[in-house]
Amino acid sequence: MIETDILIVGAGPVGLFTVFEAGLVKLRCHLVDSLPQAGGQLSEIYPKKPIYDIPGYPSILAGDLVDRLMEQIAPFNPGFTLGERAEQIEKTEDDKFILTTNKGTKHKASVIAIAGGLGCFEPRKPPIANLENFEDKGVEYIIKDPEVYRDKRVVIAGGGDSALDWTIFLADVASEVTLIHRRQEFRGALDSVEKVIDLANQGRISLLTNAQAVGLNGNGKLTDVLIKHKTEGNITRSTDHFIPLFGLSPKLGPIADWGLNIQKNAIEVDTFDYSTNVPGVYAIGDINTYPGKLKLILCGFHEATLMVQSAFKHIYPDRKLSFKYTTVNGVEAF
Amino acid sequence: MIETDILIVGAGPVGLFTVFEAGLVKLRCHLVDSLPQAGGQLSEIYPKKPIYDIPGYPSILAGDLVDRLMEQIAPFNPGFTLGERAEQIEKTEDDKFILTTNKGTKHKASVIAIAGGLGCFEPRKPPIANLENFEDKGVEYIIKDPEVYRDKRVVIAGGGDSALDWTIFLADVASEVTLIHRRQEFRGALDSVEKVIDLANQGRISLLTNAQAVGLNGNGKLTDVLIKHKTEGNITRSTDHFIPLFGLSPKLGPIADWGLNIQKNAIEVDTFDYSTNVPGVYAIGDINTYPGKLKLILCGFHEATLMVQSAFKHIYPDRKLSFKYTTVNGVEAF
Ligand SMILES: Cc1cc2nc3c(=O)[nH]c(=O)nc-3n(C[C@H](O)[C@H](O)[C@H](O)COP(=O)(O)OP(=O)(O)OC[C@H]3O[C@@H](n4cnc5c(N)ncnc54)[C@H](O)[C@@H]3O)c2cc1C
Ligand SMILES: Cc1cc2nc3c(=O)[nH]c(=O)nc-3n(C[C@H](O)[C@H](O)[C@H](O)COP(=O)(O)OP(=O)(O)OC[C@H]3O[C@@H](n4cnc5c(N)ncnc54)[C@H](O)[C@@H]3O)c2cc1C
Repeated sequence: MIETDILIVGAGPVGLFTVFEAGLVKLRCHLVDSLPQAGGQLSEIYPKKPIYDIPGYPSILAGDLVDRLMEQIAPFNPGFTLGERAEQIEKTEDDKFILTTNKGTKHKASVIAIAGGLGCFEPRKPPIANLENFEDKGVEYIIKDPEVYRDKRVVIAGGGDSALDWTIFLADVASEVTLIHRRQEFRGALDSVEKVIDLANQGRISLLTNAQAVGLNGNGKLTDVLIKHKTEGNITRSTDHFIPLFGLSPKLGPIADWGLNIQKNAIEVDTFDYSTNVPGVYAIGDINTYPGKLKLILCGFHEATLMVQSAFKHIYPDRKLSFKYTTVNGVEAF
Repeated sequence: MIETDILIVGAGPVGLFTVFEAGLVKLRCHLVDSLPQAGGQLSEIYPKKPIYDIPGYPSILAGDLVDRLMEQIAPFNPGFTLGERAEQIEKTEDDKFILTTNKGTKHKASVIAIAGGLGCFEPRKPPIANLENFEDKGVEYIIKDPEVYRDKRVVIAGGGDSALDWTIFLADVASEVTLIHRRQEFRGALDSVEKVIDLANQGRISLLTNAQAVGLNGNGKLTDVLIKHKTEGNITRSTDHFIPLFGLSPKLGPIADWGLNIQKNAIEVDTFDYSTNVPGVYAIGDINTYPGKLKLILCGFHEATLMVQSAFKHIYPDRKLSFKYTTVNGVEAF
């Protein structure tokens, strides 16, 4: 069992900065995120885009902001459970919480801070009836380790950067790569599109446009993908892996069942301290709502700061919290 | 008459960032500050101290943060009235405000955003009965232009960095410099103290410690300072200028008379939009108060952002404000 003072659900920018503010009042933090890396939307959706409204940064790449936040919280040595979804919270007899992930990892904490943004990023799935039967038995939605595909036959579906980039990358790794895409035109970067067309012309991959995966066959493990082509009719392709890369879309997910007041996929909070209707559970950043709420990073930073003051009082009701400027005290690691 | 959309009282970090957020929704801003430079407490009190709790900056000198904010708002071309104190606001018939400074400069705006921090920085004055009779007639509390003192006789009072630094500087400019200090020990940087003692030993300045200015003489213009020395009794020193440098301390000042609800030297606001009890007048940053308020720079940034949304609706009640990420639109100058 992992034990900490504040268990933070979501390692986006707001969850990360919470570690810093908690550190200033000597509270320890542990973060859980279903994605394999920290940074939330910034790392997952737009790491290479410049943000202009972080105060004091006329411009900063989203990925760089995450790096700076990681550097800023490093002295406080937060723990991370990455690649696991926070699934369930229960109250303990000693007035704490146990949070369990989808992989069964348990965390015990005095306070839960939900910084879950727009929710968990779930892969967009193609409408194939028996798709879920083959999940982890040949069907994957995220490529975690490309070595898994060495000398294997792979069918990739999709028309964006992710599908194009992995097609190019796996052309050198897999024994056979097929890329299928519903339309004629791709949405990805122009040079990636050109590279994929070159690879197809050289016969190093098969490219099927105007085509869609419509069925899967196999016996316990995937063996074939059924493809419907606009003009050529049905095609059956033998394969070891089918990888639909249609992007990730966020879903509030299990948090919806934690007994919190929810309004339009967001958790209602009190702007005094960003507390929810459950004492000891707070919600900050994109996932909360209150009158005037703006889903901005800089607003989440403020919410995290006020929240930590209240968390301190929740944990130590009898201790006085003396407020000190960082310029005066510096950052004392612990 | 200077005209603008949002007249910001106070060019501290919070007032400055307001210009950026206003710029995103195409509202123009003008700032008034009683200090001769932008940056508020950061420039006036601790420009060389590192701040550790600006999100995304593991450490940044206060002065550098001000520079970065100035750079960030530059595309929106704000106006500045510096070195003048906002003294009075009145409502006009067309539902706007006229703000007048102590020097009589008038500004017309639809919205007033008070980002006045701890108030105006007022010089700490020594307890000399007729001191105010000689203000601007030989007595100055801030050195704006050292050339004023060229080939003049000057008496400086104080024991901190400001008194030490100006003594050293004016030793080369004035015809005669006397530094008087109440105690034996100085509070300033060690090397400044050493330099002042060297200058005294070389006979280039007179140094009187354990001494206090207790009276002033003159006829329309200052002619002498009366000094009381602990062991040597009274001394009369002929001089053209007397410059007490005892630091600046903030006072809420004229803002207290603007009909706003005040609680312990701070303006009460609604956290929905940081509006005051007077429609069209907002208060953000250190100068406001609400349940849970923390006097932190990052909190002021959030308050400024929400405030601007409300200011937009106050100015254009019929227009819909569409919220866009800066990553998507960039910063369009205007
Ligand atoms: C294209 C784009 C451009 C943007 N531009 C700007 C901009 O210019 N300025 C700006 O201020 N904002 C911008 N934003 C918005 C900004 O990214 C969000 O406000 C910010 O990411 C919110 O941070 P957060 O930490 O609250 O949540 P997120 O960044 O959404 O992070 C939440 C994290 O929680 C995790 N999570 C959720 N539920 C669970 C669970 N049950 N278990 C485990 N983990 C979970 C998610 O995996 C995610 O990593 C932009 C957003 C997008 C998509
Ligand atoms: C030594 C020290 C260390 C600090 N360390 C930190 C830290 O580590 N982190 C942190 O977040 N905060 C810190 N702070 C606090 C931080 O400086 C303030 O929160 C911040 O300055 C508030 O910004 P502001 O824009 O609201 O007001 P201010 O910076 O106070 O600026 C207000 C401006 O308004 C002007 N003004 C007021 N009234 C009038 C008037 N009537 N007419 C014209 N001008 C007027 C003043 O001259 C001033 O320039 C520290 C403060 C000090 C003193």
